Amino acid sequence: MARLVVIGGGAAGMSAASAARRVAPALDVVVCEAGGFAAYGMCGIPYFLGGTVPEAEGLLAYPPSEFRDRRGIDLRLHTRVTAIDTCARQVHIAGPGGDGPLGYDAAVVASGAAPVRPPAPGLDGSRVFTIRSLDEAIELRRLLEGGTIRHAVVVGAGYIGLEAAEALVCAGAEVEVIEALPRVLGNVDEPVAELARAEMERHTRLRLGARLGGVREGGGWGALTVMVDGAEIGTDLVVVATGVRPATDLLIRAGAEHLPDRSVLVDASMRTSLPGVFAAGDCVALQHRVLGRPAWIPLGPAANKTGRVAGTVAAGGAAAFAGIVGTAVVKVFDLEVARTGLTLAEARAAGLAAAATDVVSRSRARYYPGAQPLHVRLVHTAEGRLLGGQLAGREGAAKRIDVLATALHAGLTVTDLAALDLSYAPPFAPVYDPVLAAAIKACGLVASPEPAAAGGAGWPAVTLGG
Amino acid sequence: MARLVVIGGGAAGMSAASAARRVAPALDVVVCEAGGFAAYGMCGIPYFLGGTVPEAEGLLAYPPSEFRDRRGIDLRLHTRVTAIDTCARQVHIAGPGGDGPLGYDAAVVASGAAPVRPPAPGLDGSRVFTIRSLDEAIELRRLLEGGTIRHAVVVGAGYIGLEAAEALVCAGAEVEVIEALPRVLGNVDEPVAELARAEMERHTRLRLGARLGGVREGGGWGALTVMVDGAEIGTDLVVVATGVRPATDLLIRAGAEHLPDRSVLVDASMRTSLPGVFAAGDCVALQHRVLGRPAWIPLGPAANKTGRVAGTVAAGGAAAFAGIVGTAVVKVFDLEVARTGLTLAEARAAGLAAAATDVVSRSRARYYPGAQPLHVRLVHTAEGRLLGGQLAGREGAAKRIDVLATALHAGLTVTDLAALDLSYAPPFAPVYDPVLAAAIKACGLVASPEPAAAGGAGWPAVTLGG
Repeated sequence: MARLVVIGGGAAGMSAASAARRVAPALDVVVCEAGGFAAYGMCGIPYFLGGTVPEAEGLLAYPPSEFRDRRGIDLRLHTRVTAIDTCARQVHIAGPGGDGPLGYDAAVVASGAAPVRPPAPGLDGSRVFTIRSLDEAIELRRLLEGGTIRHAVVVGAGYIGLEAAEALVCAGAEVEVIEALPRVLGNVDEPVAELARAEMERHTRLRLGARLGGVREGGGWGALTVMVDGAEIGTDLVVVATGVRPATDLLIRAGAEHLPDRSVLVDASMRTSLPGVFAAGDCVALQHRVLGRPAWIPLGPAANKTGRVAGTVAAGGAAAFAGIVGTAVVKVFDLEVARTGLTLAEARAAGLAAAATDVVSRSRARYYPGAQPLHVRLVHTAEGRLLGGQLAGREGAAKRIDVLATALHAGLTVTDLAALDLSYAPPFAPVYDPVLAAAIKACGLVASPEPAAAGGAGWPAVTLGG
Repeated sequence: MARLVVIGGGAAGMSAASAARRVAPALDVVVCEAGGFAAYGMCGIPYFLGGTVPEAEGLLAYPPSEFRDRRGIDLRLHTRVTAIDTCARQVHIAGPGGDGPLGYDAAVVASGAAPVRPPAPGLDGSRVFTIRSLDEAIELRRLLEGGTIRHAVVVGAGYIGLEAAEALVCAGAEVEVIEALPRVLGNVDEPVAELARAEMERHTRLRLGARLGGVREGGGWGALTVMVDGAEIGTDLVVVATGVRPATDLLIRAGAEHLPDRSVLVDASMRTSLPGVFAAGDCVALQHRVLGRPAWIPLGPAANKTGRVAGTVAAGGAAAFAGIVGTAVVKVFDLEVARTGLTLAEARAAGLAAAATDVVSRSRARYYPGAQPLHVRLVHTAEGRLLGGQLAGREGAAKRIDVLATALHAGLTVTDLAALDLSYAPPFAPVYDPVLAAAIKACGLVASPEPAAAGGAGWPAVTLGG
């Protein structure tokens, strides 16, 4: 019987295994997962830590029995893959799921991404956490529930750091966030990041431009002492959220082509350069439709979709992934911060002559109670090509970004954007939706706003009759 | 000095006047408004009635002085236009703003829409209201504040009827809604309308398939008696919300071409068939990008946009309106109901071989507290052409419709839709956004789902190299 081996039981791996099973009911599908859980919502970990999600089991999309008994997937937990031998078409595994070689006809590598720890001493202690796995999160949650954690330090103010900080505040800790850069949220431009910074400062102590010197056990007023720029902070625990890197050692050792950041290159069917080896999820670079080249942006939706494509094709079916536009959203306490496409900084780094248009509109009609300011930034060329957008506000930002994501997917211009027929009722938007308001302003900045273009392509020559 | 006369001081008229002033600072801009208010948010009237918006002035985008003193617009309130003479290029006006002819070089007719009253006796009484003008709404609000209104009857269960019913409940009345059709919200398909019906029944008494016999003063337990299908309902006031018709008598008497529903035809510059006469707002038929022909769908956003286009072009500038896709949203108590494009019924009425795909997903990740069911309906052809969509739920429906509105504007297929890179974080959506879930299901129903098509157009031939 032909065998598919899936390496990694996260969203991508379990999507691949499930898709393969659907396509090829007779295929032997083996999933090797190094940790103790499969198919859980990694993005939910901060909400489990903070107690918003009461039980770890709540994060499991399905229990292991669903895969083993109902889907006929041979899910092997605590089982590591130590090598891929593409000549012999076998992987080497170790753990309770088996030790030694395991042959495959096709393999899907969904090994994800691994946390990066800064080069400072003491980050391997027992009260220093990353929150990249549910196993580790359960341990941290147990510590938080012990009632001894009064103070916590989060290292890193990217979106995971901010979510971790919020979780720790929800769990009752006083939180201090340390960030080496002079700002938070490096994946949005500064005017938008500034709103997130202000929101963080309402709930935590924020030290920007601060270098972590190291962590040592014991000290004045906590279990640990964190050294920052010569100062010492007594704390009860440390969460390191200084980013992740592709967990692609296996693939690269086997010879897979990859980007300089070590994310692995795949085609639209998720085939790597290795024969019979597919890859999906947070370990791969994906075609970025705005950049026009592969980019590594590890996020949940693409992990699910690329897993499904990889499993389908690996099992003999047909599927293709259409690429990403770089959409992401994060809740920062009571603020929603969303982005898609390229930021102004990213566009300029890519060599594009980009400009940004900002408006501050409202989430509801001016006269409707509860309207919140909504900041919209559009990034575009002088000719009006839409390159990206960002939104921030206390309501209406998170999913409004999807209009811009859809516009980017379709290649719309800011003139097209200004012409969209977006929904309106006083409780939900101003009559000119904030996205339209930004687009109208951007249209005023683009070169040669031709009236014909302003009308879009949809209206044929005038027919005044019947 | 050249003169522009604008007929109607609503959203379209005041947008036209303001745009004309910007384009041609020397132009004499006269606005004749039959009522006592200009530039108010008509869509906000239900929220003023219910007390959500405390003061009528809150609905005014600007006070009259803004137009008269700051924008140099000659705004004449309580001034009716009784005729347009296109040969003499003059309108005839009556009221405090002048009596007799007023010459123009260009005219913009923004006369809006007028309520239709069913052919039943007694609907002209003093306690029978339509809520199409702020003047009338102020009178009704005064009555509601008098503390004597314990019971109200709303005739009509379209979106205005539902908003009026909610407003009257907010104002403290017990409300009964009478609708001749066997269902509410004729502008969405039945599975979605059914959710609105259930929500209405939580808060009001709803009589569907009920014919209004008439209204008479006095009776058993209220100021009025409403006759419905032989029964009698005692009530304190009646709101008639049985639809509107284009207020185009002036234009049609002057010879303007129009649709059978009496909405006036215009080109993309908002020119009517009459020389020098433009029209904008709720009185015009607009190019419907999905139908490919003009359609009359009177709503606020297009009124603002078409007013701006008409005023710009009438004053010598260049602008064009890109058309509509039929997007609308309504709050029904705690439910959001949104639609865009064509419903299944509308698509079939237009002769399209359409199908509908329904999913019930959630507004947040499954494990995130507060997730609400979200009903998504996609309307599409067997080949996957997207024709429309509907959404209903307690959160996340109102603005999520804009993804579908954008997709319709861009001409995307359900396969394109399934490939969109929409935002995800557990508080805001499941990892497969409900729109994606519906599109993925619809893809399974379309003929010949080619894998290349599934990938979209954005990913060129595979290049596995650095």
